[in-house]
Amino acid sequence: MPRQSVPELKPVPRLLMGPGPINAYPQVLRALSVQLLGQFDPQFRRYMAETSALYRKVFQTRNRQTLMVDGTARAGIEAALVSLIEPGDRVLVLVFGRFGHLLSEIASRCGADVRTLETPWGTVFEPDAIERAVKKHRPKLLATCQGDTSTTMAQPLADIGRICARYGALSFVDATATLGGMPLPVDRWGLDVVSAGLQKCLGGPSGIAPMTISDRAAARIYQRRHIEQGLQKKGYRPGTGKRIRSNYFDLAMIMDYWSDQALNHHTEATSMLYAARECGRLLVAEGLTHAFARHATTSRQVLEGLRDLDLVPYGDLAHKMPNVTGVWIPKDVNGERARHRMLERHNIEIGTSFGPLHGKIWRIGAMGANARPAPVRRTLAALREVLRSERRR
Amino acid sequence: MPRQSVPELKPVPRLLMGPGPINAYPQVLRALSVQLLGQFDPQFRRYMAETSALYRKVFQTRNRQTLMVDGTARAGIEAALVSLIEPGDRVLVLVFGRFGHLLSEIASRCGADVRTLETPWGTVFEPDAIERAVKKHRPKLLATCQGDTSTTMAQPLADIGRICARYGALSFVDATATLGGMPLPVDRWGLDVVSAGLQKCLGGPSGIAPMTISDRAAARIYQRRHIEQGLQKKGYRPGTGKRIRSNYFDLAMIMDYWSDQALNHHTEATSMLYAARECGRLLVAEGLTHAFARHATTSRQVLEGLRDLDLVPYGDLAHKMPNVTGVWIPKDVNGERARHRMLERHNIEIGTSFGPLHGKIWRIGAMGANARPAPVRRTLAALREVLRSERRR
Repeated sequence: MPRQSVPELKPVPRLLMGPGPINAYPQVLRALSVQLLGQFDPQFRRYMAETSALYRKVFQTRNRQTLMVDGTARAGIEAALVSLIEPGDRVLVLVFGRFGHLLSEIASRCGADVRTLETPWGTVFEPDAIERAVKKHRPKLLATCQGDTSTTMAQPLADIGRICARYGALSFVDATATLGGMPLPVDRWGLDVVSAGLQKCLGGPSGIAPMTISDRAAARIYQRRHIEQGLQKKGYRPGTGKRIRSNYFDLAMIMDYWSDQALNHHTEATSMLYAARECGRLLVAEGLTHAFARHATTSRQVLEGLRDLDLVPYGDLAHKMPNVTGVWIPKDVNGERARHRMLERHNIEIGTSFGPLHGKIWRIGAMGANARPAPVRRTLAALREVLRSERRR
Repeated sequence: MPRQSVPELKPVPRLLMGPGPINAYPQVLRALSVQLLGQFDPQFRRYMAETSALYRKVFQTRNRQTLMVDGTARAGIEAALVSLIEPGDRVLVLVFGRFGHLLSEIASRCGADVRTLETPWGTVFEPDAIERAVKKHRPKLLATCQGDTSTTMAQPLADIGRICARYGALSFVDATATLGGMPLPVDRWGLDVVSAGLQKCLGGPSGIAPMTISDRAAARIYQRRHIEQGLQKKGYRPGTGKRIRSNYFDLAMIMDYWSDQALNHHTEATSMLYAARECGRLLVAEGLTHAFARHATTSRQVLEGLRDLDLVPYGDLAHKMPNVTGVWIPKDVNGERARHRMLERHNIEIGTSFGPLHGKIWRIGAMGANARPAPVRRTLAALREVLRSERRR
C-alpha cells in the first residue's frame, strides 16, 4: 500500500482485442453511471421487465423465465447447474476445450455423476457422436459450451435439442463467449437453459449473467422450491424435490424475485442491470442479423490480415467462432514478450491460451464494439511492427 | 414488451432513504463509467492491489486476504460459509432479525448442523448469553450479523473473538449493513471472516462483496484447495480437506486469483471493482472516525425529527444501528399508502420491514452520501406532509 493517498481512476486506455473482456460500448458506460434506484421502485421493476423482454429477443426465445444472475458468467453457469442437478444425477458434458472442463468441474461440485465426451482441442463434435454418447450414458442433463474461447471453436448446436428430447434429457448451453456474435435461436433449437455474460459480443462489463430457462426446465427447478425461512407466506408449501444446495444461486427464488411476486432475495446489482439492459438495447436496435454479419465479416478481416503477416490460423476453420481467432505463434518469436510489447507499446491486449495451447497460440478477439474494421486494422498494424522488432532481436 | 423501441435509461431521480440500497456518491458513478481493462493488465492488477489495501483500512485489519467476491452482499456471505463449512460441521448462528435467519438458511444449505440462538426482534444478545451458547453447542463456526436492518439493531461484537478463541471456534460476521457506518475493528476484535456490500454506508451499488479473511481462516480454507481441472500446474497437490461444494464461491481459488499467482478463476467484474475501489478511497480519504461520527450525528438528527413528528422509534435505542432507524407507523395511518406517497409525490424511498414487523414499522436509512443534514431534512419535511395528508383522508 503506498503511503500517499490513492488517486482517482485514470487508466491508460487499452484496445481489448483478446478473447474477452473487451471494451464496453460508450452507451453502456453511460448507463453504468446512472444514479441508483431502489430495487422495488416501479421504475426499476420496469427496467427489469424491459431487460427480460430485450433478452428474449437476444436469446430468440419466448421463455417467460429470462432473467439475470448477479455475478460473472461463471455465476450464471453455476446457478443453472446447481439448480438443475440433484446430487447423484448423471450429467454428460461435451468437452472441446478448457471451458468444457469448467462445466464438468462445476457439475461435479454440484454432486453430479459426470460423464464427459472429449474431442481433440481445435475440433468439434459431430451430432452422431453426441447422440451415441447420450444414448450410452442416458444423462438427465447434457451440458456444453457454444463457443470455447480456449480453442476458438464453436460447437454446432442445431441438433442438441432434438437429441436431448429423444432421450429425455435437459440441455444446458454456456453461451458466454458467443451470445450476440453468432446465431443461437434458443427456441428453434429446443435448448433448455442458456446463460452468458456481457463481456464478449454484448460489449459490456463482466459481472451479470443473462439467462433464459425453458418452461420445462423451470418446472423442474420449481419442484425444488424452498423459500427461505422468514419470507414464507401463509399457505406456502415447499417443492417435493431436494432443496437446492445454494441460496444465492437458487433459480427458483431468483425466478420469484424477477416475477410479479418480487420475492425479496438478493439486492439487485442496479448498475450491472443498467449495463445489461443497455447491452441488450443496443443489440436489438442494431438487429441480431446485422450483428452476426458484422462479427463474421470482421472474422474474415482478421484471418486475411493474419495471412498477410504469414501467420497460420489455429484449428478447424470451418467451426471457428466468428469473434475469436487463434493463431500459431511463429517459432522465431517469443509469444509472451510479443504480447507484452503489444500491450506496453501499442496499448493493445491480445490473449494467450490455456493448458496444451499455452504459449503456442495467441488469441485475437474482435467482438462487440471492436468487431469493426478500424480496431482490427490497428491491431494488425501493431502486430506487424511487433513481429518485425521481435525478429530483429 | 412494448412494440416501440426501449428508450435510454433516464429514471426520475429518487432520494433513497430506506435500509439500502442508497444513492451512490457521484464519484462512484464516475468510476463506474471508466472504460474497461483486461483483468491481467498490470494497471488492473494494481487497482486490485490498491482495493485490497484500501479495504484493509476499512476493515481495520492486516489480513493479507482482503478481497472482493463478485456478486451481491449475499454472495459474500455464501462464499464465506460454503468455504468455511464442511458438511456436518456444527455452526451456531445468532439470530436477532431476518438476516440472522438468512445466515442459518445459507449455512444449512452448505450442509451445516445449524444451531441458533434467538432473541426477540428489537433486542440484541449479552456476551454471557453468547458464551453460554458457544459452550453448549461447541460450534466450529459462530456466525452473526453486525447490524440487522430488519430490526435496525446492531449486535456488540467486541467479545465475540475472545469467546470464539476460548472454545476453538472461528467467527463470521456479516457487516453488509454497517461497514463504514460504525466501528468494526476486525483485528482488535479478533474476527475471522467479515463480508459486506457497497450499497449501504459505503455509498456504492450492490454487486460486489468486500471480504477480509484472517490467516487462521485462510489456512482452514486452503486445506480444502482443489484447483479446477485444466488449470492445475505441475507439482499441484490438492488439499486434504473436502472439496468446497461451489466453484464460483471457492475462496481458495478466489484467494489465488487475487494473489500474485493470478490463477484464472472468474473474469473480474471490472466496473464493480472500480466502484469498490472508489468507495474505499472515499471512505479512507474522509477518515473512518469522521464517517462513523457523521452517521451517528445523522442518526440523532433522524430520531429528533421523528419525535418532532410525534412518532415513536422502534426497538432498543441503546443498540440501534446509526444508519437505519425504525419507527412505529401511527395507528391512524396506512403505512404502505404513505410510503407510496413518499415515493410518487416526493421521490423519496423509505422502507417497510419483514415478517413480524411488516406494515408495523417504517425504516428510514441515512447512510453513505445521504448521512448528511440536507437529505434528512428533506425526508422529514416530506414525511410531515404525507402524515398530514394521510390523516385528512
